[in-house]
Amino acid sequence: MGDQESFAFDAAASKRPAQPASKSAGAPGPKRRKPRVQKSAPSDRSPSKTRMTAKEMAGRQRDISVSEFFAKNRHLLGFDNPSKALLTTVKEGVDNSLDACEEAGVIPDIRVEIIQLDENRFRVAVEDNGPGIVRAQVPKIFGRLLYGSKFHRLRQSRGQQGIGISAAGMYGLLTTGKPIIITTRTAPKKAAHHFELVIDTKTNEPRVKRDDEVTWEKDHGTRVEIELEGGYRGGQHSVDAYIRQISLANPHAKLTFVPPKPEKYGAEHVFDRVSEELPPETAEIKPHPYGVELGVLMQMFRDTKARNLRGCLIKDFSRVSSRIADEICQKAKVASSRRPGEMSRDEAERVHKAIQVTKIMAPPTDCIAPIGEELIESSLRGEVQADFYAAVTRRPTVYRGNPFLIEAGLAYGGELSADDSVTVFRFANRVPLQYQQGACAITKGVAATDWKSYQLQQPRGAPPIGPMLLMVHIASVWVPFTSESKEAIAHYPEIIKEIRLTLQECGRRVAIHIRKRRREADEEKKRAYIEKYIPQVAIGLQEILGFPEHERNKVVTDLTDVLERSRRL
Amino acid sequence: MGDQESFAFDAAASKRPAQPASKSAGAPGPKRRKPRVQKSAPSDRSPSKTRMTAKEMAGRQRDISVSEFFAKNRHLLGFDNPSKALLTTVKEGVDNSLDACEEAGVIPDIRVEIIQLDENRFRVAVEDNGPGIVRAQVPKIFGRLLYGSKFHRLRQSRGQQGIGISAAGMYGLLTTGKPIIITTRTAPKKAAHHFELVIDTKTNEPRVKRDDEVTWEKDHGTRVEIELEGGYRGGQHSVDAYIRQISLANPHAKLTFVPPKPEKYGAEHVFDRVSEELPPETAEIKPHPYGVELGVLMQMFRDTKARNLRGCLIKDFSRVSSRIADEICQKAKVASSRRPGEMSRDEAERVHKAIQVTKIMAPPTDCIAPIGEELIESSLRGEVQADFYAAVTRRPTVYRGNPFLIEAGLAYGGELSADDSVTVFRFANRVPLQYQQGACAITKGVAATDWKSYQLQQPRGAPPIGPMLLMVHIASVWVPFTSESKEAIAHYPEIIKEIRLTLQECGRRVAIHIRKRRREADEEKKRAYIEKYIPQVAIGLQEILGFPEHERNKVVTDLTDVLERSRRL
Repeated sequence: MGDQESFAFDAAASKRPAQPASKSAGAPGPKRRKPRVQKSAPSDRSPSKTRMTAKEMAGRQRDISVSEFFAKNRHLLGFDNPSKALLTTVKEGVDNSLDACEEAGVIPDIRVEIIQLDENRFRVAVEDNGPGIVRAQVPKIFGRLLYGSKFHRLRQSRGQQGIGISAAGMYGLLTTGKPIIITTRTAPKKAAHHFELVIDTKTNEPRVKRDDEVTWEKDHGTRVEIELEGGYRGGQHSVDAYIRQISLANPHAKLTFVPPKPEKYGAEHVFDRVSEELPPETAEIKPHPYGVELGVLMQMFRDTKARNLRGCLIKDFSRVSSRIADEICQKAKVASSRRPGEMSRDEAERVHKAIQVTKIMAPPTDCIAPIGEELIESSLRGEVQADFYAAVTRRPTVYRGNPFLIEAGLAYGGELSADDSVTVFRFANRVPLQYQQGACAITKGVAATDWKSYQLQQPRGAPPIGPMLLMVHIASVWVPFTSESKEAIAHYPEIIKEIRLTLQECGRRVAIHIRKRRREADEEKKRAYIEKYIPQVAIGLQEILGFPEHERNKVVTDLTDVLERSRRL
Repeated sequence: MGDQESFAFDAAASKRPAQPASKSAGAPGPKRRKPRVQKSAPSDRSPSKTRMTAKEMAGRQRDISVSEFFAKNRHLLGFDNPSKALLTTVKEGVDNSLDACEEAGVIPDIRVEIIQLDENRFRVAVEDNGPGIVRAQVPKIFGRLLYGSKFHRLRQSRGQQGIGISAAGMYGLLTTGKPIIITTRTAPKKAAHHFELVIDTKTNEPRVKRDDEVTWEKDHGTRVEIELEGGYRGGQHSVDAYIRQISLANPHAKLTFVPPKPEKYGAEHVFDRVSEELPPETAEIKPHPYGVELGVLMQMFRDTKARNLRGCLIKDFSRVSSRIADEICQKAKVASSRRPGEMSRDEAERVHKAIQVTKIMAPPTDCIAPIGEELIESSLRGEVQADFYAAVTRRPTVYRGNPFLIEAGLAYGGELSADDSVTVFRFANRVPLQYQQGACAITKGVAATDWKSYQLQQPRGAPPIGPMLLMVHIASVWVPFTSESKEAIAHYPEIIKEIRLTLQECGRRVAIHIRKRRREADEEKKRAYIEKYIPQVAIGLQEILGFPEHERNKVVTDLTDVLERSRRL
């Protein structure tokens, strides 16, 4: 590229005499002025005028607490605007409740209340029948960002970051100054605790305002109340839509939703469970060697409890047998007895390289719990009145060493509108994704599938058009979201491919249904047509053969009968 | 909505006998099975099988360090893939250098080197002639996320978060295990310091590996070296494109870029400065009352040094005169002598409400430093060979209490291709934005402008088509980015509106140029046409009036002359 001259058209400004004249200096276009250049500063080496010294700057350097950071960048967490903030708050509450119930093995019964206090001020309450939270943990869980049990393990769960609910509390505090209120109880014989606390954004530490024992009718569970500036609205991004979708993906959960303004939005809405069975408990897995970067590997060597490299490889990673561990050590030319903590960067790098060239089994997949074809179909049947339903759950596979699984459900015909492009419900670890549809791998996968070959119209590079509802679910030990607000899945090729394969299977099934329907309709037409003429035929025969009335009626029945039989063949 | 029945189609599953039959229970579609529902758990109140108790869960709750968080979610910081990671690393280094130079009043001379060490491993070095960094600060600035001087103030700067450079160092560490290397010196008589340090992701604390005094030819400045896994590529997202654009928006900076593989990419590229003048120093401003939320207001009352409410309002906010302070106190019915620290939430809320209904002047705008029309034009002239240039800098205005300003430059014709849609360079506080074009308010603003009325083709809702280069710059004390990786501007209506107004002004100017060009072309045609016939006319006259040769030649010159004159009118 010859761009280095781009800025050299002013000889005075140019520090390099050797530079050739620039494009813009040669052959100027019509009415082309030579740009004026201000002169003033002596050189570019010594300060022209000192504004601030390194020392002064040092004095201004400060820590930024993670809560200050997210308070100022709250849009990163899904609190961009009032109505989204309200939805996000409900979402974080319900996600936590569902996770807690699943971990404890409780079939969830969750109640969501939204009370409107003012034009744009609401109180959100989420109450569950979960295991409750031990007193000592309450302040940190609700009054501290980046605190939780889900981040440090590879295990399928709704929450990942340990930010959500405390961020919601912080948003409430920022907009209304009100604390977050928690009531929780772990067992019938234990006392119920009532907390009121705020997060100190400057230090990211909780400040407890109240901490009493109270009487509570619940044996165990947690109730969280947050007052916030919000907006309540209907449509695709509404709380109602969210609750409906969450119950679609969590058929074992019972959800009760009490909207504001019952006179306008109706009294409480109950979404009952379709299944009395909890999702299977998912195992936590160790990182797969292929997915581990050099720096992470070195960290693991420092932290391991194993006394030697061989042991560390076997204990701390998934799918590393003693045979494979030895193979890696040999290839890396590092003694399998080497103390991991004492290994040099070079040794670690050799091990890292060795891992890449060693055949290691894909990670185990019992760590993933799909919703399952049967339940997806049941949910869809409950959700919408259609002519045809199908559901497909694929076998788990791996991206960047992380196991994941795609499943999809489909409802076709019935009350669904035929003229619009199909509705797509997106889910990640059973959580509905309602924003950033365009940025999501699921949307990409739907558009990338060739629906024309499945009897559906489809504009180029867009989702298909027709009376269809699609539900796509990704379950993984680590869902790669495009932002902290967890609204869209990152475009990993492996993921998009799996989505396409799942949808193709759904497509094949719906195509059969659609063709069958068309065939039936055609025959119906033919049949009506022929039936219409049978009496005439009979009359004709009667005239030719001159047989009596009753004979003619018999002929009609016979012919109709023949027709029937021929159709049945 | 009647959705509350959606899930009640199975009487057994339904806990509410009162519920009416669901849609799906009534009038089932053809071949519609009743969904099977598994029974097993006794009730949904008591655990079906206890998996984990609240106590066990408590044991798993842990702090997540911000660096662990971003290491796992590095794509949020712009390290999604190798080539982007390389670009982001260069970017963070250069941004810091430019900020430091500006604050210190040094005219920047920055050198960027990319050395390829291996197939996909590079060393990035960014060296500046800035004020340097005092020894004690080096570890935290480069070995700790969320540490810096720019977050806690409202002042125009490239960096905002205190994440960038340490995140780059962390990415290098994770992918290569190598430390970040810093050489810095604050003054000729001070010693130069050489550091090698890594970030401890578990604690977000720096660990210093080396800290020596060294001899360095530079009087003052900083050199940062990071080794990382990366990819070097050309095109819109290349480092070259970035450096070109950064020099466009920073005409006072001299940039030297040494690409890898000189034999392939050429030796060092020098982008010399167009101006010897530093951008004017920008003032730091206080928050404007309108932009402050209740919770933030309460925090300010707690933190203020002012002894009474009146003083706090005047000292800690911009545009609050003593008169306005009194007015607010009266409207809020809070004594102006009230101790801020002792104020109740209700008092604070009354003050907050009072602020909203008090007329307060817009914030001062000396806190914003535009590039300026003249320099934008000079830069464009240096960048591209065109027929016409224009630049517009609007007056500052305000979004959510934050002053901001839009300016735009335009180059038309010349070497620019006429068939593609125009190129748009996006800048925020003089930093080029190269990714997420689609998500950016600037792109929105360009598409939302009606270019047809300015003589350009434009497909519906898309940027215009034609031989044009657009450069749009937003300068603000707080740029609302859509993600930590700072790649796109959030869609604030006030911002998009200003962008449109700026582009419309540019459009009007280019339209005049385009029309003039067309007119000239037309006349050129006419003239050539007439000239062709003048001799014939002369011959005609000669035959009619019978005058000699020389007369005829005179007639030709006269007619030509007349034609010339008529054109000049």
